[in-house]
Amino acid sequence: MIKIIANNYIKTDKVEEFINLAKGLVENTRTKDAGCIRYDLLQDIKNPQILTMVEEWEDQDSLNAHMNSSHFKEVMASTADFTEKPAELHICRTIM
Amino acid sequence: MIKIIANNYIKTDKVEEFINLAKGLVENTRTKDAGCIRYDLLQDIKNPQILTMVEEWEDQDSLNAHMNSSHFKEVMASTADFTEKPAELHICRTIM
Repeated sequence: MIKIIANNYIKTDKVEEFINLAKGLVENTRTKDAGCIRYDLLQDIKNPQILTMVEEWEDQDSLNAHMNSSHFKEVMASTADFTEKPAELHICRTIM
Repeated sequence: MIKIIANNYIKTDKVEEFINLAKGLVENTRTKDAGCIRYDLLQDIKNPQILTMVEEWEDQDSLNAHMNSSHFKEVMASTADFTEKPAELHICRTIM
């Protein structure tokens, strides 16, 4: 299993629009992407500009297929200008 | 519900020792702390010095009680010198 923590740093005036597009991505991913165990969208309470995806995938193949899906690539393209700095991606293994 | 993502940045020569102590903390938290829904320990694959707790708590009270528990405070004290820089704590709400 692969776990992902992806922090997105969004410009203040784009947070609402980002959330709306990201909600569609969560819905599509959960319902269409094989091997998706968990795909949650969180927002930092103290800094609402930090939007984080917490993901669990069965294996690298299912994660790759997700990142090649049209719904993923379209949202990435649509939100490319929304970010204040590059996303911080942690690909993790579970220790416990 | 409150979700926590806590990134710990550990000195290279302290990673193994940190993991051993953190495993005890995970075990104690899961079995002893009321209101703990999820308490997972992850390790970044590309940078093994980043050890992340992914947590879910029923409410602020259960989180506060956890942070005041002896098992939490003892591990924080024991690992205080292990860190390369301060931990990065994200207290989050679930959007979806």
